[in-house]
Amino acid sequence: MGLVTNPNEEGTDPTFFEVVLAQRACRQFDGRPVDDALVARCISAATHAPSAENLQPWVFVVVGDDAQRSAIGDLTRRLWREAGRPMSEGRLTPQLLDDVDAGAETGVASAPVLVVVCGDSSVAHRSTLASSIYPATQNLLLAANALGLGSAMTTLATIDEATLASILGTPDHIRPMAVIPLGWPARPLGPPRRRPLSEVAHRDRFGTSWT
Amino acid sequence: MGLVTNPNEEGTDPTFFEVVLAQRACRQFDGRPVDDALVARCISAATHAPSAENLQPWVFVVVGDDAQRSAIGDLTRRLWREAGRPMSEGRLTPQLLDDVDAGAETGVASAPVLVVVCGDSSVAHRSTLASSIYPATQNLLLAANALGLGSAMTTLATIDEATLASILGTPDHIRPMAVIPLGWPARPLGPPRRRPLSEVAHRDRFGTSWT
Repeated sequence: MGLVTNPNEEGTDPTFFEVVLAQRACRQFDGRPVDDALVARCISAATHAPSAENLQPWVFVVVGDDAQRSAIGDLTRRLWREAGRPMSEGRLTPQLLDDVDAGAETGVASAPVLVVVCGDSSVAHRSTLASSIYPATQNLLLAANALGLGSAMTTLATIDEATLASILGTPDHIRPMAVIPLGWPARPLGPPRRRPLSEVAHRDRFGTSWT
Repeated sequence: MGLVTNPNEEGTDPTFFEVVLAQRACRQFDGRPVDDALVARCISAATHAPSAENLQPWVFVVVGDDAQRSAIGDLTRRLWREAGRPMSEGRLTPQLLDDVDAGAETGVASAPVLVVVCGDSSVAHRSTLASSIYPATQNLLLAANALGLGSAMTTLATIDEATLASILGTPDHIRPMAVIPLGWPARPLGPPRRRPLSEVAHRDRFGTSWT
């Protein structure tokens, strides 16, 4: 499916549903750089998400510098080995575990751009950050997919918030909440697998199937 | 802008960027019902969001029943008067405060459908729910916009989680995290207002402007 690999090379402008129904996590990149103009489109999309009281409490640290990406990569690898892998083993399918493992070991940091999405607790109350920052992050991921870029929602590196903040130089009121790799996918991604509506939708009260 | 009011009446299939850059909160609806087929497209979009370990820990309670919507409306109104309005007064612009006030008093509950998006802590660790549930919720909101429906991210009713859970009949491990009204907008919505990239994007480290 051209859409998933790189629709923009074909000059297409995909429809909303083409993009949203084809979103996949990409954790391996082909090494080509990503133009700032494309990163700007992704961040601009992110800033169009809703936020509590329209306070827009988001901060994006766009990391392209080799040493900075390396430091985030080292942190991700350490947290994966210490906390992520032990928790995920036996829970993920072998295929997904391999993919996440390769991503955490080297893949994510190999993306030419890492966008660290942060919440600013001096702008909005800390309790409202998640419902503003993750919609913005999702817009960023979808925009990347629309442009043919690969990306993935990762939060592993935020477990050690102090180290990540130290790498980024963020003050205490700026809370890193997601690390989003952006790059060109190393290989085409297949269709997503999702639970059907009959399993997840209820009518009026929990327990009454909606479908 | 036809897109924002109801593109599907014109038979259009808007592009991704048309939808994402035009998203607005809608808190007043015109009373016409919303077909289940459209609700299904919104929830299907939601289920295509990323989630931690692809666990898809989402539950959607689709509330169309009058008494149930009324109960959620009463809860929303009470929490708005007790907690929301006192906090928002003096912080929001008068225009936004009026809009949110009308929405919380009667508007949200007047939507023909309220989708309560919940996280299932028996499927995924509670600490990972926000980074899965809010991207799914954002997909739902964007899909609604793509279909010409009005919607808004609201979390006010979840402050009193126990009462909301009691209305919905959700067990302890199902945590209501957002209440999304779906309906046809009572009036066209203007373009969104957003902070420019120069204010929110940093290069490599916090404090160095990206643009």
